[in-house]
Amino acid sequence: MQTLAQLETPALLLDAAQMERNIARMRAHLQPLGVTFRPHVKTHKSIDVARRMMATTQGPITVSTLLEADYFSAHGVTDILYAVCIAPNKFDHVAALQARGVKLTLILDSLETARLLVDRARSHAQRFDLLIEIDSDGHRSGLPPDAPQVVEIARYLADAGIVVHGVMTHAGSSYDCRSNDALRAMAEQERAAVVHAAERLRASGIACPVVSVGSTPTALFAHDLHGVTEVRAGVFVFFDLVMAGIGVCRVDEIALSVLATVIGHRADKGWTLLDAGWMAMSRDRGTAGQPTDQGYGLVCDRDGRPLDDLMLVGANQEHGIVAHRSGKVDGVRHLPVGTQLRILPNHACSTAAQYRQYHVLGPHGSVDATWPRFSGW
Amino acid sequence: MQTLAQLETPALLLDAAQMERNIARMRAHLQPLGVTFRPHVKTHKSIDVARRMMATTQGPITVSTLLEADYFSAHGVTDILYAVCIAPNKFDHVAALQARGVKLTLILDSLETARLLVDRARSHAQRFDLLIEIDSDGHRSGLPPDAPQVVEIARYLADAGIVVHGVMTHAGSSYDCRSNDALRAMAEQERAAVVHAAERLRASGIACPVVSVGSTPTALFAHDLHGVTEVRAGVFVFFDLVMAGIGVCRVDEIALSVLATVIGHRADKGWTLLDAGWMAMSRDRGTAGQPTDQGYGLVCDRDGRPLDDLMLVGANQEHGIVAHRSGKVDGVRHLPVGTQLRILPNHACSTAAQYRQYHVLGPHGSVDATWPRFSGW
Repeated sequence: MQTLAQLETPALLLDAAQMERNIARMRAHLQPLGVTFRPHVKTHKSIDVARRMMATTQGPITVSTLLEADYFSAHGVTDILYAVCIAPNKFDHVAALQARGVKLTLILDSLETARLLVDRARSHAQRFDLLIEIDSDGHRSGLPPDAPQVVEIARYLADAGIVVHGVMTHAGSSYDCRSNDALRAMAEQERAAVVHAAERLRASGIACPVVSVGSTPTALFAHDLHGVTEVRAGVFVFFDLVMAGIGVCRVDEIALSVLATVIGHRADKGWTLLDAGWMAMSRDRGTAGQPTDQGYGLVCDRDGRPLDDLMLVGANQEHGIVAHRSGKVDGVRHLPVGTQLRILPNHACSTAAQYRQYHVLGPHGSVDATWPRFSGW
Repeated sequence: MQTLAQLETPALLLDAAQMERNIARMRAHLQPLGVTFRPHVKTHKSIDVARRMMATTQGPITVSTLLEADYFSAHGVTDILYAVCIAPNKFDHVAALQARGVKLTLILDSLETARLLVDRARSHAQRFDLLIEIDSDGHRSGLPPDAPQVVEIARYLADAGIVVHGVMTHAGSSYDCRSNDALRAMAEQERAAVVHAAERLRASGIACPVVSVGSTPTALFAHDLHGVTEVRAGVFVFFDLVMAGIGVCRVDEIALSVLATVIGHRADKGWTLLDAGWMAMSRDRGTAGQPTDQGYGLVCDRDGRPLDDLMLVGANQEHGIVAHRSGKVDGVRHLPVGTQLRILPNHACSTAAQYRQYHVLGPHGSVDATWPRFSGW
C-alpha cells in the first residue's frame, strides 16, 4: 500500500468507491426497464474494472477494437459485441477469436459489406453473428431506420445462411444535449429509431431478437425502453467533465483523475506549471463547446476538491499551465513546488488511454491497488 | 516481410527512407553552425529511431519523461537531458538512473526548486547536474534572461557544491510563426535570450559551458548560433501537418502516417467512414489555428499520395469521417469498403503515442520491420 505522496507523477487515479456508485446507479436505472446491460469496455480496458460492471464473468460486453476482444476473452469473457462496422482485413482476427470459443457479434450497415461477408463465409466456411447498424441521429454510420437496405441486407444474408440477430444504434449526438428534457428526448429518439427498424425486419419475416441501444447519456435518461433488449454504455463507469457539462453527473461523481506535481511558476502571468501536459490529459477539449470550458482539466487539491476555480488553461507535451478561470494574475494562491494536485479530465476514454495502469484509491486516500490497462490495436 | 494489404488497421506506418532524409537535413543544417546535436526522443520513443539520430550509441539525447530515460539508458544511452523542471517526487528515480551510470542533466527555473535540490543533496549525498531554464518567448516556463534569479540560483547552488553547467531554452512559440522570416527571427530571439543569460552568469564568475536551444522550427531556420553549444529538436524526424503548415517541411516530407480501412459510407452526406478515429489519430487539432485546417488528418491513398482533397473532418473514438475539404456531397469518389488509406497526422508526437509499434516501410511499400515503441510514465 502506498500513499499519494509516494507516487511519481503524472499518475492516473481511480476512486474505486465512486466507480462502484456509478456502476450501481446505472444498474439501478436499467433494472426496472427490463433490458440486458452490455457494458462498453473501451473507456477502461481493464479486466479489474470490467469484472465490476459485468453481469457474469463471461460478459456480455461491448468492445471498440479487436485487441479489446483478445484481452477480455483471454480473461474468460465469451459474449462480445464489436461495435464498429467490420472490414475484410479483420476477418482472420475474427476467426481466431471464434476458434477460441468467443461469440463475437459484428455489425454492418451496407450491402457492400454484406457481400464481402458472404464471400468470406463461403471461401473460409466462417460463421458470422451480425447486427445491422441503424442511424438514430445523423451522427456517423448506420442506415436510417426507414432505409430499404435494412431489410435487403438481412434478406441477402439470410439467403446465404448468415444470421442477422437484430439491430443496434448509438445516439452519439446525446453528447450535444444541454438539458434533461433534451436527454430524455434523445433517448426516446434512439429507442424509436432502432425499434422501428426491428419492426420492419419482423414484418419481412426476419426474427430480430436483438435490439440494442446505447450511450451513457441516453442510457441514464431513458425512462421507457419498450422494444429494446439491451443497452450499451461505457464512460459512466468513471464519468468526466464532458458528462458533467451535459448534466449527466456532478463533478464530484467523477471517479478518474490525474495526479500531477507543481514544478514551477510564472507569477507575472498567474501561472503554476505542472508535470502533466497534454500527454497526461490527452488533447481532448470536449468541454470547449460546452457552456463551461474546462480547458485541459479542472484542478483539485490532492484530496480531489476543486481548488479556487483553477484549471489547466494550457498544455505542452509534458507541461501543464494552471491559471485562474478568470485569467486574473493577482491573488492566485501560491502552490509550492512539489505540491500534488488532482486534475479532472474532459474525457475519461482519451485520458485513461494515455496510461498503463490505474492507481486505485482506497477510502482514506491510500493507493490500495494497481490495475493494469492497455491501449492500441 | 508483409505487405500493407496484410496489416490489420489502424496501424502506424513509418517511411524509413523519408525519415533518413529528414535526419540528414537536420545534420546538414547544424553541422556548419558548430553545435552539438542533442536529439529529442519524445516524438518517437524508439531505440531503433534514436540510433539513427544519435551521434554515438551513448547519446546525447533529450527526454521528456523519466520513463524515456529508463528505456534509453537500458539500451546503452548515458548522456541524457531531462527537459522538464524537476520536482522532488522524482529525486529517487533520478538517483536510480545515476546509480546505473547515466549522466542525467536536470533543469530548474526557481530558487524554490534550488532549495529542494540542496536539501536533497545534503540528506541523500546525491549529485545533481543542472541547467537553468530561460524563457525566450513567454511560452511556458523558464526565467527571463535578465531576471536576477538566474544568477542567484547559480550562486546559491554553487555555494552548496552543486554544479550548474549552463542554461537552456525552448522557443515553443516558433510553432506560431507563419513565414520563413518569422522563423529566422524566432531562432535569433531564442539564441540571443539564452546567450545573454549565459553571459550574465559568466560575468558573475560562473563558468556556464552549456548553452542549449531547441525546437524543430528554430533548429532548421537558425542561420547563426554564435554562443550556443547544443541544439535540441525532435519532431523533425517524422514531421507532420503542423510543421508543413508552418512551412518547415513539405507535406510529402512527412514520414509518419496511419493506415486505415474504409468500413462504410454515408453517400447522402458525402462521408466515407474509416476504422481510424481520434484514438488512432489522437485528439490533436494543431492545424485548426493554421491557415489550412487539416481536420484530424489529410487523407492519402495507400501509397501516400494525397487523395482528391479529402480529409478526416470528424472523428469518434474508433470511427473517422472522411469528406471533401469543400464539404461537397456530390462527386466524391466512392472508396469501396476494404480500401486502405493513409492519413497524415497533425502532430507526430501525439499520434505516435497511441501506438505500440511502427510498421517500417521499405522502398517499394513493403513492411520491412516492426519497431517497438512505448508511451506513459
